[in-house]
Amino acid sequence: MTHDPLVAAGAVRRHDGRAPDELRPVRITRGYTVHAEGSVLIEFGRTRVLCTASVEERVPPHKKGSGEGWVTAEYGMLPRSTHTRTEREAARGKQSGRTQEIQRLIGRSLRAVFDLAALGERTLTLDCDVLQADGGTRTAAITGAYVAAHDAVTQLLAEGQLARNPIRHPVAAVSVGIVGGVPVLDLDYVEDSGCETDMNVVMTGAGHYVEVQGTAEGEPFSRDDLQRLLALADGGIQQLIALQRAALAGAQVG
Amino acid sequence: MTHDPLVAAGAVRRHDGRAPDELRPVRITRGYTVHAEGSVLIEFGRTRVLCTASVEERVPPHKKGSGEGWVTAEYGMLPRSTHTRTEREAARGKQSGRTQEIQRLIGRSLRAVFDLAALGERTLTLDCDVLQADGGTRTAAITGAYVAAHDAVTQLLAEGQLARNPIRHPVAAVSVGIVGGVPVLDLDYVEDSGCETDMNVVMTGAGHYVEVQGTAEGEPFSRDDLQRLLALADGGIQQLIALQRAALAGAQVG
Amino acid sequence: MTHDPLVAAGAVRRHDGRAPDELRPVRITRGYTVHAEGSVLIEFGRTRVLCTASVEERVPPHKKGSGEGWVTAEYGMLPRSTHTRTEREAARGKQSGRTQEIQRLIGRSLRAVFDLAALGERTLTLDCDVLQADGGTRTAAITGAYVAAHDAVTQLLAEGQLARNPIRHPVAAVSVGIVGGVPVLDLDYVEDSGCETDMNVVMTGAGHYVEVQGTAEGEPFSRDDLQRLLALADGGIQQLIALQRAALAGAQVG
Amino acid sequence: MTHDPLVAAGAVRRHDGRAPDELRPVRITRGYTVHAEGSVLIEFGRTRVLCTASVEERVPPHKKGSGEGWVTAEYGMLPRSTHTRTEREAARGKQSGRTQEIQRLIGRSLRAVFDLAALGERTLTLDCDVLQADGGTRTAAITGAYVAAHDAVTQLLAEGQLARNPIRHPVAAVSVGIVGGVPVLDLDYVEDSGCETDMNVVMTGAGHYVEVQGTAEGEPFSRDDLQRLLALADGGIQQLIALQRAALAGAQVG
Amino acid sequence: MTHDPLVAAGAVRRHDGRAPDELRPVRITRGYTVHAEGSVLIEFGRTRVLCTASVEERVPPHKKGSGEGWVTAEYGMLPRSTHTRTEREAARGKQSGRTQEIQRLIGRSLRAVFDLAALGERTLTLDCDVLQADGGTRTAAITGAYVAAHDAVTQLLAEGQLARNPIRHPVAAVSVGIVGGVPVLDLDYVEDSGCETDMNVVMTGAGHYVEVQGTAEGEPFSRDDLQRLLALADGGIQQLIALQRAALAGAQVG
Amino acid sequence: MTHDPLVAAGAVRRHDGRAPDELRPVRITRGYTVHAEGSVLIEFGRTRVLCTASVEERVPPHKKGSGEGWVTAEYGMLPRSTHTRTEREAARGKQSGRTQEIQRLIGRSLRAVFDLAALGERTLTLDCDVLQADGGTRTAAITGAYVAAHDAVTQLLAEGQLARNPIRHPVAAVSVGIVGGVPVLDLDYVEDSGCETDMNVVMTGAGHYVEVQGTAEGEPFSRDDLQRLLALADGGIQQLIALQRAALAGAQVG
Repeated sequence: MTHDPLVAAGAVRRHDGRAPDELRPVRITRGYTVHAEGSVLIEFGRTRVLCTASVEERVPPHKKGSGEGWVTAEYGMLPRSTHTRTEREAARGKQSGRTQEIQRLIGRSLRAVFDLAALGERTLTLDCDVLQADGGTRTAAITGAYVAAHDAVTQLLAEGQLARNPIRHPVAAVSVGIVGGVPVLDLDYVEDSGCETDMNVVMTGAGHYVEVQGTAEGEPFSRDDLQRLLALADGGIQQLIALQRAALAGAQVG
Repeated sequence: MTHDPLVAAGAVRRHDGRAPDELRPVRITRGYTVHAEGSVLIEFGRTRVLCTASVEERVPPHKKGSGEGWVTAEYGMLPRSTHTRTEREAARGKQSGRTQEIQRLIGRSLRAVFDLAALGERTLTLDCDVLQADGGTRTAAITGAYVAAHDAVTQLLAEGQLARNPIRHPVAAVSVGIVGGVPVLDLDYVEDSGCETDMNVVMTGAGHYVEVQGTAEGEPFSRDDLQRLLALADGGIQQLIALQRAALAGAQVG
Repeated sequence: MTHDPLVAAGAVRRHDGRAPDELRPVRITRGYTVHAEGSVLIEFGRTRVLCTASVEERVPPHKKGSGEGWVTAEYGMLPRSTHTRTEREAARGKQSGRTQEIQRLIGRSLRAVFDLAALGERTLTLDCDVLQADGGTRTAAITGAYVAAHDAVTQLLAEGQLARNPIRHPVAAVSVGIVGGVPVLDLDYVEDSGCETDMNVVMTGAGHYVEVQGTAEGEPFSRDDLQRLLALADGGIQQLIALQRAALAGAQVG
Repeated sequence: MTHDPLVAAGAVRRHDGRAPDELRPVRITRGYTVHAEGSVLIEFGRTRVLCTASVEERVPPHKKGSGEGWVTAEYGMLPRSTHTRTEREAARGKQSGRTQEIQRLIGRSLRAVFDLAALGERTLTLDCDVLQADGGTRTAAITGAYVAAHDAVTQLLAEGQLARNPIRHPVAAVSVGIVGGVPVLDLDYVEDSGCETDMNVVMTGAGHYVEVQGTAEGEPFSRDDLQRLLALADGGIQQLIALQRAALAGAQVG
Repeated sequence: MTHDPLVAAGAVRRHDGRAPDELRPVRITRGYTVHAEGSVLIEFGRTRVLCTASVEERVPPHKKGSGEGWVTAEYGMLPRSTHTRTEREAARGKQSGRTQEIQRLIGRSLRAVFDLAALGERTLTLDCDVLQADGGTRTAAITGAYVAAHDAVTQLLAEGQLARNPIRHPVAAVSVGIVGGVPVLDLDYVEDSGCETDMNVVMTGAGHYVEVQGTAEGEPFSRDDLQRLLALADGGIQQLIALQRAALAGAQVG
Repeated sequence: MTHDPLVAAGAVRRHDGRAPDELRPVRITRGYTVHAEGSVLIEFGRTRVLCTASVEERVPPHKKGSGEGWVTAEYGMLPRSTHTRTEREAARGKQSGRTQEIQRLIGRSLRAVFDLAALGERTLTLDCDVLQADGGTRTAAITGAYVAAHDAVTQLLAEGQLARNPIRHPVAAVSVGIVGGVPVLDLDYVEDSGCETDMNVVMTGAGHYVEVQGTAEGEPFSRDDLQRLLALADGGIQQLIALQRAALAGAQVG
């Protein structure tokens, strides 16, 4: 990682003109579809993920009779959300390892901010379907799923089905990485394909980590790199949580 | 089927206020996503289907070396496009019989208006993904897929990859059915769930049939019922083809 | 479609010598195997389908506690029922889209003539297995499955397990199509492979439609073509229902 | 195993009246279906298996370029070939362990009498489908598959596609077992369900063993029991090979 | 099979120096892993199989409410237990026919010596996983599984969960075969690959057969060959049962 | 996380007597099985993983013709490696999300230290099979897989199949976590089940990160917690890399 004074001075610009610590334009549209208890289209630049929250009055076997609920997630990409067409997983007959890894991450991230006892014996399923992919689909999914989950919980509270709010904190996620030696925030597809190190950070509104997943795509990364990436992610998450708050303060579209 | 003079006089109104021979509001948005060669969001009332057309420079085994191309389709529903959550087919590990039946129908309908020799040895895949379901997803899918296919072909022609236009006719589809004894056009979910007879008609711009699929959901239907339904469909298809033409005459959104 | 006076005069002969409106020789053998409650071998010329009806004292989840029964069908082809060997679906690990489409059609066709409340909470499964294929396997299957279902119901009535007959009408099916410009009845494999339009019609003994499925294999077809095909099918179905009645009036073989 | 003088004197009768060393009536119908190169319906009493032999001009990967051919088998039961309906393996999405074990046995048994070099680089597939099951389906399948294979080879020889006959010996199979203490030949379903020991023997026309598979269903069996069962099988196989010869000497039905 | 006086005189030596009727060195290590109720590493020369016995307080559906227990087995090979890497069955998504055949054999062999009523309504699962393969993995698995099952039963008896010992006899298995015309005991991989006839024999401590499975790999085998192989197996099994007894008399390792 | 002076003073002891920064006894046995190019049994206390390295002279499609090789991994647990029996993935017909996530992690970790161009167009597959599980199986797998990969590479170099060593650095992995408020190194099963935060760190011999994966199991964790865990992991990895070096300096067992 270079220690170029230009970077320090903010003079470095990315291929799309962003500063290293700048998010893509983020847009959160609530009520995007009508049937789900929560339905959010989240956009990080050209990345667009539809996150729906569905409430079902049953729990998986390991929670039966426990008095606790469950929060889980599923993830998918439309075949032509990607630059070239990706085979449809339903047609292939199985979900890829990548899909499973991502949906497990989304599920853990949401569970980390939920009080499952307060949820009661019901399941909240977050379906995160990528309509258009341009890098950062998993972090957009987590950030949008939180808003959809919040809308579903608000509806349950309004209907008197929940005695108290099971959500303990907001949660959001962002990617950071080292591209051309420069630590940058919220990588798009071009940056993601060419980066040396890629890290996804999931954090609560209280500034605590839920997940930190850093991967050396090329050269292994140093302790210093790690610290710089964590600091960048920290700033990005704070902005995302503010955007979630603003979206939830507004009226639903749908 | 009643022969109520009120129906004849147009005095019969459906649960959403439409006349028996009235389509839901249809909206066609081209360029809805950026990566696909054709990308169309089609809406029939609250039914919303994203239709993308992807061009790949290879053909399935039965077309290899034939000099001809192939046109095929895949269909899916997002888990929460429906009133209650539907299990994700990728997670279940297989596509349902209904899904396979619909995607085979879409594929046949599009192939019927394509000159596969003029397409050359390439494959055009129409992915039709239901974002929100409210009845008539398969007919919306066919009608939208045609527009997406047209955009993909226009791009191939513009790039000089095609010597001549492989599309011979427009094609569109609509559902008709008998609800409460009255033949109606373009059923929504409420009507579809309660109808006695359901028919999907796929027709070209030249007024010829590509597919006619009528099913008695309850009581078998008479020859007269069949004729009335065919006449209704005829009118609906003509309107849809006019809407496709208008959409293709406009500029793309994306 | 030609309007050749020779056709009108009945001078047109098909490749196997049949007149355009002539069925292949149809043979219905009841009691073909011994274990099933109904077991029928039906032959349309060289097409041979074994249809068995099995009664089980349970219903699928969506019928539990409803007081109603269920009628369903499964379809299969023996690997060498076809001209060249077809891969065994059990070995491939899944049923093809075509198989699922056909078995759903058979199930719907039989359910259309059943009073599910009169059947009580039990399931009638029609297994239609093609021993030899020469075109028209799905229409032979429906026509034979009705006879097998009738035998199973007769046995249940004789055993006092049913208070009243749940069968409301006979049901039969036939294919029609346009071959070399001539509308013909009951296509064999050679005609089916070369036809321009293919239609399967399922009709009750009362002359009402259960299913009408017409597909343009090549050129889309006109309104006039459709009317001519429906008329041909009508005549064929009446003959088939007479043959079913005759078979049911005879003694069982097995 | 009892050493009852009544058994020795032939005074013991089985539940269906057969003597302990008596086969069920065996019927071999050649040319049962028309498309396959060999097609044989074999009946051992009420057990009926359709055995087809299909020739394909390709070999599995491990034989490519070897100059040798391959002989393989697949086995299936129609869902209602059995007393109560058995789930369709194609619908379940996999073949049971029993099915795989049987089809591997049939394949090995046929390969044992084939000169794969004389067959040339082609595959002979024996499909054995049980139309009606009443015990002994695997031994009927092997015995019938040999006749089907012979018919396919005869056709290849007649067409000049084979320079010499790749069949070295006839092969047949029979079951033997100990029922109520008495060693019996060719068990039907009732006997098979209640037997203490069950053995399947596959033997060539030259009196050599291809397979010997004995299983204690209840009590383990003694050396003496084993010897008595082998002797019984020996006699049964000789009769079956004579029946195969007679069937092959006659004209085909189909 | 030769009748060479050298063989009779014991002068014939196998490729690894063994006499024709000599087992490979057999080693049985109890308590090889810590979690299972029984855990045995069994080695036949370089073949190494880990056999664990797991007790679960439930039975499969066909035993529910019967008062009887169940004994079953599963078999697997580590991908690189073999000379060249074998594809992992979990990754392929299904168990091969060979795997299923072997695990069914192990299960039957163990059940043959168990009194399922004395076991009570619980399941004993024998997992036999091949760490290193050099021929005879299924016979090693049966021989080792018996010891693991014995350890599990001893633990249940010690805990007072069983009123009486459900094991009626020891059981062991060995392979025999004809290699280069000479009948030999306990074939290793080299011998197994080149043998003319291969037989697996499973026998109780009382000298009765549980399974006899002989297969001609090349030439069918004679009645005399069969008798010689049975005699060889007999001697081998007696030695194995003595080794099991000795292992069970010692202290557990783990 | 407490800041208890006792911890600082090293007075805190874990349930098994270890100090917070103490690894379990680690044992590395090379040449554990004979067929693989590299075969290592690695033990972290009671956790035992067999890691084999297999060399195959082919690459996956995305590397064909690239001149580069590929390094990949598969992971499995024997059914009774765990406290209670885990269903066999081969029998279930698919690998769990956890399995896929772990094997993708192992593969990425090893690829990070490989020069794929120097490996040439061949595939190195690391199979990591858990014989006994007691926490930390994935980190043991990575640490052991490196040694197996090293042995395979040494053999290829010795045979002259590689011009230069494709391994650029050693790589090892360890888990760290917060248990009862205390950051500890190398969690066993008991600690892992009860920990608040769990982190797996993969690092090269040069002290750079390959992967950092931290997950809040209960409460999200603070920046300080993260730093303490990274420091603990650092120390553990250095010890593991020293143990790998020592193991590779010794002679192989097998």
